[in-house]
Amino acid sequence: MTQPRPKIDDPLNAFCKDTDAYLEGAADGPLSGLTFAAKDIFDVAGHVTGGGNPDWKATHQPAGKTAWVVQVLVDAGATMVGKTLTDELTRGIFGENAHYGTPVNPNAPGRVPGGSSSGSASAVAGGLVDFALGSDTGGSVRVPASFCGLYGLRPTHGRIPLDGILIQAPSYDTIGWFARDPETFARVGQILLQNSTGSIVPPRPRRLVIAQDAFEVADKEVVDALQPVVDVVASLIGASTTERLSPAGLSGWPGQQQVLQGREAWETVRDWLDRTNPRFSFEVTERYVTSRAISDEEVQAAKTAKMEVVERMKDVLSGDTVVCLPTTASPAPPTGQRTSARNGIRQRNSSLCCIAGTTGGPQINLPLAQLDGLPVGLSLLGPPGSDEALIGLAREVAAAMQG
Amino acid sequence: MTQPRPKIDDPLNAFCKDTDAYLEGAADGPLSGLTFAAKDIFDVAGHVTGGGNPDWKATHQPAGKTAWVVQVLVDAGATMVGKTLTDELTRGIFGENAHYGTPVNPNAPGRVPGGSSSGSASAVAGGLVDFALGSDTGGSVRVPASFCGLYGLRPTHGRIPLDGILIQAPSYDTIGWFARDPETFARVGQILLQNSTGSIVPPRPRRLVIAQDAFEVADKEVVDALQPVVDVVASLIGASTTERLSPAGLSGWPGQQQVLQGREAWETVRDWLDRTNPRFSFEVTERYVTSRAISDEEVQAAKTAKMEVVERMKDVLSGDTVVCLPTTASPAPPTGQRTSARNGIRQRNSSLCCIAGTTGGPQINLPLAQLDGLPVGLSLLGPPGSDEALIGLAREVAAAMQG
Repeated sequence: MTQPRPKIDDPLNAFCKDTDAYLEGAADGPLSGLTFAAKDIFDVAGHVTGGGNPDWKATHQPAGKTAWVVQVLVDAGATMVGKTLTDELTRGIFGENAHYGTPVNPNAPGRVPGGSSSGSASAVAGGLVDFALGSDTGGSVRVPASFCGLYGLRPTHGRIPLDGILIQAPSYDTIGWFARDPETFARVGQILLQNSTGSIVPPRPRRLVIAQDAFEVADKEVVDALQPVVDVVASLIGASTTERLSPAGLSGWPGQQQVLQGREAWETVRDWLDRTNPRFSFEVTERYVTSRAISDEEVQAAKTAKMEVVERMKDVLSGDTVVCLPTTASPAPPTGQRTSARNGIRQRNSSLCCIAGTTGGPQINLPLAQLDGLPVGLSLLGPPGSDEALIGLAREVAAAMQG
Repeated sequence: MTQPRPKIDDPLNAFCKDTDAYLEGAADGPLSGLTFAAKDIFDVAGHVTGGGNPDWKATHQPAGKTAWVVQVLVDAGATMVGKTLTDELTRGIFGENAHYGTPVNPNAPGRVPGGSSSGSASAVAGGLVDFALGSDTGGSVRVPASFCGLYGLRPTHGRIPLDGILIQAPSYDTIGWFARDPETFARVGQILLQNSTGSIVPPRPRRLVIAQDAFEVADKEVVDALQPVVDVVASLIGASTTERLSPAGLSGWPGQQQVLQGREAWETVRDWLDRTNPRFSFEVTERYVTSRAISDEEVQAAKTAKMEVVERMKDVLSGDTVVCLPTTASPAPPTGQRTSARNGIRQRNSSLCCIAGTTGGPQINLPLAQLDGLPVGLSLLGPPGSDEALIGLAREVAAAMQG
């Protein structure tokens, strides 16, 4: 039910200041007592979804209906306390919004929070809410989870309904969430994954693949920092092998997703762009202009390349297998860097993020490592449908690291 | 001398609201008693030059020195009452600024004023000042002069020093000005062109070329509306011929300027773009991204094509000749149109504007025609150095039209 929103204390610039969307959770639900925030791409009835861009906000009407995913959480008892900043129309992975500023990364001061679910990650990492909703098209949950030191899942594509969210590229869009601890993370997951078994303790995967070429994408220091976590995962699972996912090099994998996702992203907003001539940061327009130039031939070639990745990953993930890999190639970079200084890290992170993006399978970030005090995450990646298995394994790994 | 600025009554949104730059004119100068405005690309000591973009303004320091062209006018007695809106970094010809709004076109309500010298044209057309400074790289004085019904000159390239202005593409940048009447226009010209003869009454050109292919670029109704003015010019000069400037078609001419100007414009701001990742309207970034993609081979080919235009126009303009052509292909289009709805008119206007841009010669707009009550201008175009001749002829044509 809609009520006046209590004032949010937001020292992190995580929340949107131009909306007072607030939904009190149902009494006596499984999530009662928990608070959450929703990235400003989720509709809340009666409020305009801003999408991180003032011209988007100014040219859209208030939502008629609350997004499915928000409503199901509120019905389960969680209280939505506000909307959070996002990169413009979700197109960015660093979390610096030219219009609304950069949410603070409480676990890496002076560093970006990661994006595009920047405000959600910031709010959870800073303890302003218990959990938060984000979305992940090309890495927008996984990257901020790694940079901010949070549990964060990109679920199986299609597993969580996209009704009532601002679409970027529907073949790649997913809804994910962040939490600081694996128990809260799993409680939310039971609701969002519509898991009726009452608990997320599926059988543990039987085989671990350590993705050698994915580790080679990351900084050497990141690999070293992640090693103890990899060791715990390996010992829990028992059987592990080190393999190259792509014999020809992982850097050849993101191109096909960039083409296919870019084409869809362009088609999604081209009419609005033409009508509105909106103000974007240079990088965001640049991305759309690049996407617009994609030819049908490039799309066809990308579809072929995509199927090769899908087939290869089916082989890798056969036999109840989970893959581990670095979530990001480095910890969060500093705020305010030159665009050109980040192109390399952006591309390396795309090499890591495109795997689950392409297969449609789930990937969870485990915030169990640091490098010079900065969070950096290890990911577990499974075949489509293995969301619960990953969440369950994440809990076991966390417990084993503490024990 | 710097003094507190009197409040500007600005019902046209022609002036920048975020600067109070004001320079009182010297007493007893040749321009004493006249007021003028300067497009916000001209430096005024102590004030930040905004360039029509808030991120440009936020990342630049106050000017240390007033632009040469402003100072010479103030020294001549004219009072600069304020700075005027411009398309972002002068990159636009319609005058709609996504950040600061669209100056009103007082002579064509509901229509764009034209740009990039939009506020200057609006302020003069609305009678807020006696004259105003603009700049013209690809048409930014000529187009708003035509749309707003003003005298406006793109001078010979290099004739008026560019010291202290925001550069777009130095091989094409020129400083021009607007006035409602040819007398005021000529008085200002004597100062800006540093004409020491005391009056602008040079010998009248001896031959008129009516540029047939340029008229074919314009709407049929525009051609009809301009015919009486063409007739007056022809009768004043006596000898006139109708010729095609480009036997292969004028639509082939603007490409080389777009390449060469685009390359320079990109080089001018690339470091700032990288550092700042600024917010632009979609179209402006699009233009820079397109410019960035220009190859060295395209530049070489464009240089060859440019020389062909220069040589051809040398032939056309030999023997003390002036060319007349429509300044714009149509009257001002409505405000708020879709981007795609304007690409055609933009390209046609480029075909007309690139001629003087390429030759480096002067072109003046005569505001002596209307179409359904909307201004549309005839241009006189001469060889480099013929600025005074064009201004003098403009006065004669205006007098003959009244007589």
